[in-house]
Amino acid sequence: MMTMSSALLTDHYELTMLQAALRSGAAHRRAVFEVFARHLPGGRRYGVVAGAERVVDALTGFRFGDAELEFLKSTRVVDPPTLAFLADYRFSGNVYGYREGDLYFPGSPIMVIEGTFAEAVLLETLTLSILNHDCAIASAASRMVHAAGNRPIIEMGSRRTHEIAAVAAARAAYIAGFASTSNLMAGHLYGVPTSGTSAHAFTLVHDDERGAFQAQIDALGRDTTLLVDTYDVAHAVRVGVELAGAELGAVRLDSGDLAAVAHEVRGLLDSLGAFDTRIVVTSDLDEYAIAALAAAPVDGYGVGTALVTGSGAPTAALVYKLVAREDASGEIRPVAKRSVGKPSKGGRKLAYRQLNAEGIATAETVITADRPAPEGRPLLHPLVTNGTPAAADSIQAARERHRASMAELPQEAHQLSRGYAAIPTVFD
Amino acid sequence: MMTMSSALLTDHYELTMLQAALRSGAAHRRAVFEVFARHLPGGRRYGVVAGAERVVDALTGFRFGDAELEFLKSTRVVDPPTLAFLADYRFSGNVYGYREGDLYFPGSPIMVIEGTFAEAVLLETLTLSILNHDCAIASAASRMVHAAGNRPIIEMGSRRTHEIAAVAAARAAYIAGFASTSNLMAGHLYGVPTSGTSAHAFTLVHDDERGAFQAQIDALGRDTTLLVDTYDVAHAVRVGVELAGAELGAVRLDSGDLAAVAHEVRGLLDSLGAFDTRIVVTSDLDEYAIAALAAAPVDGYGVGTALVTGSGAPTAALVYKLVAREDASGEIRPVAKRSVGKPSKGGRKLAYRQLNAEGIATAETVITADRPAPEGRPLLHPLVTNGTPAAADSIQAARERHRASMAELPQEAHQLSRGYAAIPTVFD
Repeated sequence: MMTMSSALLTDHYELTMLQAALRSGAAHRRAVFEVFARHLPGGRRYGVVAGAERVVDALTGFRFGDAELEFLKSTRVVDPPTLAFLADYRFSGNVYGYREGDLYFPGSPIMVIEGTFAEAVLLETLTLSILNHDCAIASAASRMVHAAGNRPIIEMGSRRTHEIAAVAAARAAYIAGFASTSNLMAGHLYGVPTSGTSAHAFTLVHDDERGAFQAQIDALGRDTTLLVDTYDVAHAVRVGVELAGAELGAVRLDSGDLAAVAHEVRGLLDSLGAFDTRIVVTSDLDEYAIAALAAAPVDGYGVGTALVTGSGAPTAALVYKLVAREDASGEIRPVAKRSVGKPSKGGRKLAYRQLNAEGIATAETVITADRPAPEGRPLLHPLVTNGTPAAADSIQAARERHRASMAELPQEAHQLSRGYAAIPTVFD
Repeated sequence: MMTMSSALLTDHYELTMLQAALRSGAAHRRAVFEVFARHLPGGRRYGVVAGAERVVDALTGFRFGDAELEFLKSTRVVDPPTLAFLADYRFSGNVYGYREGDLYFPGSPIMVIEGTFAEAVLLETLTLSILNHDCAIASAASRMVHAAGNRPIIEMGSRRTHEIAAVAAARAAYIAGFASTSNLMAGHLYGVPTSGTSAHAFTLVHDDERGAFQAQIDALGRDTTLLVDTYDVAHAVRVGVELAGAELGAVRLDSGDLAAVAHEVRGLLDSLGAFDTRIVVTSDLDEYAIAALAAAPVDGYGVGTALVTGSGAPTAALVYKLVAREDASGEIRPVAKRSVGKPSKGGRKLAYRQLNAEGIATAETVITADRPAPEGRPLLHPLVTNGTPAAADSIQAARERHRASMAELPQEAHQLSRGYAAIPTVFD
């Protein structure tokens, strides 16, 4: 069992900045932070927002209780006035965000956090952890789903990533269009459909493959999926159909040249009369391997490692930057650092997706909040108002939204090669 | 607050295999599973074991309570007899493992799980999640530590990975020799030293850089680390020394050509009499960038993204394979699948590190348990015996062990280029 507040899922320096800002008085200045990416993960054409609802949940649990305060006191991370501030900490500001499942591009202000400097700076690490992970996974997943066309993909990467990250990865993949996950906790916590039948160990623990298949069919029914590559694939397929008949649900291939083996197995299944028995393939698939299997007689994919590692881009490069804050006269002013090669644009912003007459996206327009709103679909929605979370978005709504946002993309957005964002981000 | 049992951090198919094996009777066969990697992450010369103690902890919390059983029942993942088995589930077998901080090579049996098939198969997903993540991070971290020589490295990647994975990453990095972490939860849970002072937002929230530096020095002392690249580096260094004097602890550079800027800043600090003020550099460093800074006047590094993403190898490719099981006559027999390109070696194994007269490692010898033990350092230690965990290993002991194991490696093990394992794995 694990029990923890989310408050210490935070970088040490957020608290030392708080201590120094409490001393200087800047802690109480109103401030606006913005989450954005300077570039898309892995030279991709678009990114997918996921994790926003998890940020809101984590923020609700962001409390410094006795255990957390005692740790900070005993290790002298901060001084007693700062400990007193933390003991009373409740986020009372506003959070606006792109909705989960929607797309983002370089410079899209996918989340905006408004509050005092003190209350907003503390949320930097946790907010970025959640969004950088979940957006990276969803962005990779979306490309796989597109490459798979109408064939379903099962997410099965839990064993290849941190045990709790796996749960968030399954959730993000489902938002991006995966059909199901192997991860039971994602089913329990988020209602993601779960699936799976057997591994090689199940065949090996029995005296022979026939005994293993019979046991699986007895327990799980004729419409189960048999794993047929433990010994000899053709032999296993024959035994499977012999035992389950033409109602055998599916066979799974987890090794070899999947396209070639799928053709052989399809021919064999058809010759045995098992026309409706599906072929599911797994084994280190990514969006490129899935695309390469488009012409093979494959009915579904299982994706593990490539999904949970973001298919080469395990983090989304999102940053959390102060873009505006109150000055000594009480006025809110835009701010931006000038560090070489890491530019940021000051000011509280709003964002809109421009669509042409055919409903195809043409630009991401980002304006500062004092400018008149342009045409286009508004992208920032209130997630927390004066500390109170808005009604939670459902994972099904996020999944539906992703489908709709994808339908707005120009065709060239679906190229798998590295390149530039599918639409320009226009700062107006 | 998060509260969860670890039991659902598991793949759906582990439970359907259990159901089918309970039906066939194979569930009760004694079985031996082995965790090993067919290859090292990222074409490296060695891997680093981390996560073994976390596996033991997670196993202790692996219980199916009312909430977990109700989920499995309502979603019909398994049938009532399987639910009854799960309600009483307690792991009563044995776990042997390589110790944390020690090294591993392709084929090293880094963990061995013995029990009935039923009790051991259920642990596959969780065991692999923990070891694949923690070993990947520790393996990348170790190379960075070696590249940094005697200069300390701060782990600061929390914002670039899942919020809970970040805690495990900080722990793994510390075992591999990092000096500290930014992650407060890693300090709280594992006693990893934490550090950090300020970000660009702290400078920006004040009216000017001078005001920000003064506030930081007032709050954190003259020996603090000032971030000097928000506007103009040389100006910031002058202001920092003017305010803190020669006792200024350090300046941090987070952008630009770090080697060139470090030389300029060192010259400037020395010209101002701040001979003891250290220079800390951050900004997308990895082991290659650290090595390239060896000749620059740098006193410490901060590493974020590259650490938490395993520097190009975010997962360790460890697998959990059934290598032996009881047959119908009650005898334990080796087993192995024959899937194309994914070979495994059957049999319960023991492992030893062979050292030459100078104490340098020459081979990883892996024997089946029925063979006479060779010379060499035994690598597998009991972690759980008849369901009872051994005394916990300390993180300091793991860190010390890593240092000692690294000292045994031949010099060529420290090449940063892609290549083969530093020592051969010999199956005897």
